[in-house]
Amino acid sequence: MIGTLYLIPTALGETPWSTYLPTATRQIACQLTRFIVENAKTARAELKRLEHPVPLRELFIEQIPENPAPSDIERLLAPLLIGENVGLLSEAGCPCIADPGTLLVRRAHELNMTVRPLIGPSAILLALMAAGLEGQQFTFHGYLPAREPERSQKIVELEKESKHRNQTQLFIEAPYRNNALFQALLTACQPKTRLCIAFDLTLPAETITLHTINEWRRLPPPDIDRRPTVFLMLSSLI
Amino acid sequence: MIGTLYLIPTALGETPWSTYLPTATRQIACQLTRFIVENAKTARAELKRLEHPVPLRELFIEQIPENPAPSDIERLLAPLLIGENVGLLSEAGCPCIADPGTLLVRRAHELNMTVRPLIGPSAILLALMAAGLEGQQFTFHGYLPAREPERSQKIVELEKESKHRNQTQLFIEAPYRNNALFQALLTACQPKTRLCIAFDLTLPAETITLHTINEWRRLPPPDIDRRPTVFLMLSSLI
Repeated sequence: MIGTLYLIPTALGETPWSTYLPTATRQIACQLTRFIVENAKTARAELKRLEHPVPLRELFIEQIPENPAPSDIERLLAPLLIGENVGLLSEAGCPCIADPGTLLVRRAHELNMTVRPLIGPSAILLALMAAGLEGQQFTFHGYLPAREPERSQKIVELEKESKHRNQTQLFIEAPYRNNALFQALLTACQPKTRLCIAFDLTLPAETITLHTINEWRRLPPPDIDRRPTVFLMLSSLI
Repeated sequence: MIGTLYLIPTALGETPWSTYLPTATRQIACQLTRFIVENAKTARAELKRLEHPVPLRELFIEQIPENPAPSDIERLLAPLLIGENVGLLSEAGCPCIADPGTLLVRRAHELNMTVRPLIGPSAILLALMAAGLEGQQFTFHGYLPAREPERSQKIVELEKESKHRNQTQLFIEAPYRNNALFQALLTACQPKTRLCIAFDLTLPAETITLHTINEWRRLPPPDIDRRPTVFLMLSSLI
């Protein structure tokens, strides 16, 4: 029997597991003793939060290399070939979504392993649900260019595409550059374009605010410096 | 005090709530007595599944009209203006994502209401996690055109864009047309394009299969007739 690869979402911040995971997700995670993780330290903190019944030092926790070679992937998946079930954890949120793990999952499919995605938090999904923008068509772009003029050029391009396709554009930024991205959006976008800023999702300070660019220009800027933020934009004809 | 609008994900099929909702999501849903829903019948079944402590006939459950007029939105949100908390439920999965509710949420933001997205299942997100395709850039397109030649033209366009942007393309179809869409994909796509078919997510029959078009052409077709299915495509240079 070949093992199953479980994809286990993790906390978006310091909150008890019962606030962000179904009992079933936690139960599966607690039955596993082998994990492939983005970051060993945060993975251990997560397993502690789940009150994993096995002492942490007795669990097998291996980090995915930043640019995994095919041989890394084979090594990480080898335990599944002899029947062991393995959990994949990213640093926060869902594995493989704006996070590592995809090449591992792709190879798992090639090896006919069962891949089971478990239910849990995703900042991107929560932001999209609550933004009040367009949920029938949307694109996640990851990070925009960090420098000007490339960043503003990209913003204008995304805005045009959003209008043309009636499509929500989602993107993120390194948290220390959140303010710079926000200012670039205020400068580059059309006054009627809608911008939703969602930060500290699932945490006590959770804030989800929707305004037009014109409105944002008159308001105090949101307090997003060094806080995990999702940016969502819709420039529609409607 | 203005009330809070809670966005409550619902089951993707017949499964106990502890398999798909955190205790916190269920607890919030069970404290509410007023709900705005896509479909009253499925909403009642969901609230029964959650063992809502108030008898169902005593709950206020209102359907969102298919094309809500501004006056419908105002009427549905009015209880929040006098301090009541309200839950928004779609038929399956997350409100506002490939489901109604967006205009309601947009207006809630305009009225300075707090919008709180709760954690739960989304077939689109689960499929994307487990597909082994590209999770750094992806687009959800909703439904493709139902007729030929428009459908195949659209498929070719999405495939080109996927290659150009290294972006996963996600789409869905009315379940009775799943087989027709699958056949159109086999005919229209390039042999090396990767196609993931994910169906019955979160249910005992959950199946997530990734192959190239070339491989799919040699395999028996997946058993997707009238089953909720997410289609994911990646045509990348890598």
